[in-house]
Formats: sequence, structure tokens, C-alpha cells
Amino acid sequence: MLKSIGVPIDKLEFVRGSEYQLSREFTLDALRVASVTTLHDAQRAGAEVVRQAANDGSAKLSGLIYPGLQCLDEQYLGVDAQFGGADQRKIFMFAKKLLPALGYAERIHLMNRMVPGLTGDKMSSSEVDSKIDLLDSAKVVRKKLGKAFCQLGNVENNPPLSFLRHVILPLHELRGTPGFHIERDEKWGGPVDYPTYDEVHAAFAAGDLSPEDLKLGLADAINAILEPIRVEFASPERQALVERAYPPEQKKAKGKGKVSWDEEGRIGCVFVLLIVCLVFFFFFGCEGSLWSV
Amino acid sequence: MLKSIGVPIDKLEFVRGSEYQLSREFTLDALRVASVTTLHDAQRAGAEVVRQAANDGSAKLSGLIYPGLQCLDEQYLGVDAQFGGADQRKIFMFAKKLLPALGYAERIHLMNRMVPGLTGDKMSSSEVDSKIDLLDSAKVVRKKLGKAFCQLGNVENNPPLSFLRHVILPLHELRGTPGFHIERDEKWGGPVDYPTYDEVHAAFAAGDLSPEDLKLGLADAINAILEPIRVEFASPERQALVERAYPPEQKKAKGKGKVSWDEEGRIGCVFVLLIVCLVFFFFFGCEGSLWSV
Repeated sequence: MLKSIGVPIDKLEFVRGSEYQLSREFTLDALRVASVTTLHDAQRAGAEVVRQAANDGSAKLSGLIYPGLQCLDEQYLGVDAQFGGADQRKIFMFAKKLLPALGYAERIHLMNRMVPGLTGDKMSSSEVDSKIDLLDSAKVVRKKLGKAFCQLGNVENNPPLSFLRHVILPLHELRGTPGFHIERDEKWGGPVDYPTYDEVHAAFAAGDLSPEDLKLGLADAINAILEPIRVEFASPERQALVERAYPPEQKKAKGKGKVSWDEEGRIGCVFVLLIVCLVFFFFFGCEGSLWSV
Repeated sequence: MLKSIGVPIDKLEFVRGSEYQLSREFTLDALRVASVTTLHDAQRAGAEVVRQAANDGSAKLSGLIYPGLQCLDEQYLGVDAQFGGADQRKIFMFAKKLLPALGYAERIHLMNRMVPGLTGDKMSSSEVDSKIDLLDSAKVVRKKLGKAFCQLGNVENNPPLSFLRHVILPLHELRGTPGFHIERDEKWGGPVDYPTYDEVHAAFAAGDLSPEDLKLGLADAINAILEPIRVEFASPERQALVERAYPPEQKKAKGKGKVSWDEEGRIGCVFVLLIVCLVFFFFFGCEGSLWSV
């Protein structure tokens, strides 16, 4: 994905959480964190990020210790700043208080806007149709967009329009090919081009741009970005990697209600993803502005 | 203390918690524990052992993760059984459920009776007068017993009587010098001997044995047991050790309301004590019955 959008990945450093999160020093610090963190603080810090059951005590302890561990990552990765979605706000606030209490430096926190899920609710990995996966086929992308919530003339709650505005158009801008092109059929008026988001917005609000055409253009734009990723992942080695990362067995096991230890795996995944984000920001942040290559 | 009561300490193995509790394997297992333990289970398991604030969320996370870590100790020490006071019951119940869920063997749990504190409430390390310290001077022992709750004729709620019954008399039995001797002054009737607890109990219930005389005999019996410990700790090396273990500065810092990191230290102490208990039981347990040397 990073290559697909033109990021110079030789400037990135990827760090696996397991390289330092099981060290003696990190573990001692994790115990220090637990000894100064109240149940109340932990619940508040993780409220938007960690799945927490309603106040009935059925939440797992892992979700309570997780926010503190994410804060420690800032110290152990030696970063200047952490970058995440706006849903990280409460963990970031917790980190601002926690790290200085441990004698460590407070870090800078940067957040970007949350794009709504295609179905209109929060994007969720457990709701397949709410998001586009990086390895979705062109057909699946068109199908998911076909189901997306998008009412004629409604520009207030419109996931495809939000996605276009906050993801696709900034990317086109970065690539030097700004604007939005819809390869519309001749019988509906033929191809159309909008140089800026404001023009797409106005046309949709006025009813001049139909939900179907917006979705068509967006699907093509997304597929153009995903195509190089698909090509790279077509090799047998990459396919095997995907199989290992997301084994089909796990899905079946869930359906059967089997007990599996994938909670632990999930913690690991979240850690690694987090670190990628952190380091990613760190190197880009140094160069001035994000995405500016 | 062990030497004072005749334990062959060459048959004991002492293990420090820090020798394995910061290892990669233990830490991974601690994360597994957190991922299967609910807030409810953790609160229940630690209810009698860990200081937990009332349901207002101000309890620290350390108290919530502690019960699971104590359970893991059973596995990492490789013991057959864990021995503790009856206040450990809920943690032991938790361990019976938790270890098999992690794929480890369930352990045997043995508990002994809780002796009430001298003041009549639960014995507490934060209430100095509720307990006898191993390094208390003979004078301090007499003073603490002087303040102990002990009503004439009341055999139901009588801490000195309980202590005599469950600690002192079994020890006298083990040493081959059973019974209870009171070196009473001639003007109060002179020295008196009770061969068994039942006779002490009957005499006290009938009012023939006064609280003052019971306390006098008990103080002498306790001091006889503590004397070899005091002698051993009289050396400058041992005195320095005590100073390091219980620095006077800490008490002052608490008084001033300073923030200190001694929570962590306390966790460490609890661990080490626990392990001593575990290993202690393990070697003794193998020989049949506790204390039978």
C-alpha cells in the first residue's frame, strides 16, 4: 500500500513489538504502569479503541492493560510523536499524563479524521461491508460500493462522498493528477470530470450527480490505487503469506464456538500495526508534512 | 524464624520471583492470562488479599493482575501444591480454573487457619499493634500483649487465646515440650502449668485464669521463640540488612504524602514471600505433614 501511494519505504524503519515488548525493562515498566493506573483511568483511556463490555465486569483485563502498553511504546521506540486516528484521542491524553509520571518525556500526538464506514456506521473490521480491504478484487470493491449508504442529494451523511474527499482526492493531488473522473456510459451523458471536491459536492447536492455514477467513479478510482497491490500479491509467496496471516480455519473455528487463543495473536497484531504507524509518522514527520514526498 | 522452630533449612530451596517473573515466557503467559480473565473474576479472586477500593473505579490495575500472576507462579516454580492462609481461598479457586484453561496442570491447595489480630480484627501489617513482628524486642512483645483484646471469661473472641491454641501450643508439641507454663508471681498464686489447651480454655472460661496471667504466660512463650532470632539479628550485617529491607525514610515519606515508587517494591516483596511459602510447603509436603520434622 505504501509503495502504491508513492511512499519511499527505504526511509521507513519497521519494528516488531515482540522485539522489545517482552524484555525485562518493558515488563518492569508495565508493572509500574499497572501500579499507578486506576481502573477508572484505564477504562476511560481505552473507551473508543478497546472492546469493553458494559459495566457488568465481563470485560477482559487485556483491554484494561492495553492502553498503558501503547503509551510505553512511545518511550521504547524512542519516537518524538505518535500518529493515529481521532479515535486514539483518549489513549493519547492518557499517555500525556502517564509518561511524565514515570519520568519519561511527554510525546507529541497527531490525529487524522476518521472516515465513516461505507454502511454509514463506524468502520469496523468485524463488519465486512463497512470497509475496503487492500486485497479486495475489483469486483468486490464494486459490489461493496454498490451496497454503500448513499442517498440522492444527501451530502451530509454520505460515506462514498467522505471517502472521495478525505482519501481519494488528496491522493490524486499528491500524484499530480488532481480531480475526479467518472467513466460514465454515453447513454447517461458520457464521461465527466470534476476538478475539485467542491464541484463534486455541488453537483451531488443539486441532484446532477447520481449515487450510481458517484459510486462508479469511486470504485474505478479505488481500483486504480489497489491494482499495483493486487499485482504484487499475485505471486505464490505473497499468497502464502496472506494465508498464514489470515488462515481460513480461524473463521470456521469462530463459527463453531471453539475456544481459540487468537486473542493473544490479536494483541500482537495491534502492536505491530501501531509500531508501523509510529515509525511511519516519525520518519515522515521529520520531513515536514505527511504524505509530501 | 524457620531455624528457631527447628526446620531443616538445607531441605528448602528459596527462589526469587525476579529469577523468572520477568522472562519472555512468563510475560507471554501473563498476557494470555489477561486475555481470558474478566474484570469480575479478577476482582473476586483478589477480594481478600489485594487492597481494592469500593466500586468507584479507584482500585489500581496492579491489584487486578496480581491474582493471575500468583497462579502462574505455581506453574513456573514447578510445584505440586501451594500452601497459604484461608484468606487465599479465592485466589486458589481462581488458580484451579485458570491453569487448566492455559493447558497447565491444576495444583493442590492447602490452607491453614487465620489467627485473628491481637486487637480483635484481622491481622494487618498497617496496624502495628495487631501483630507480633519477628524482630520485636521482649519489651515490645509484652507491651503489645498488654494492649491485646482479652476479656475476663470471654473465650469466644479472644485473640491471645487463639494465638496460644493455634501457634504456641502446636509449637510446644513439636518441640517435645507440650503444655503452657505461666510464671505467675507468688502473691497471685505462684507458677501454674496447663498440660493441654482444653485445660487453659476451661480455666479461662471459669474465670480461674485472669487475662493478665494469660498475657504474661503468652508473652514469655513468644519471647522464648523469638529470642534465637533476635540473637541472630544482633550482628551488624543483619542489622544493615533490616535497615535496607525497611528503610526508616519510607515511613517519613509516607507521612509527608510524597509520591514514591514503593508500590513496585511491595509487589516484589509479596512475590518473594509467596515463593518462599510455596517452596517451603513443597519440601515439607513431600515428607508427609507440615511441621513434622
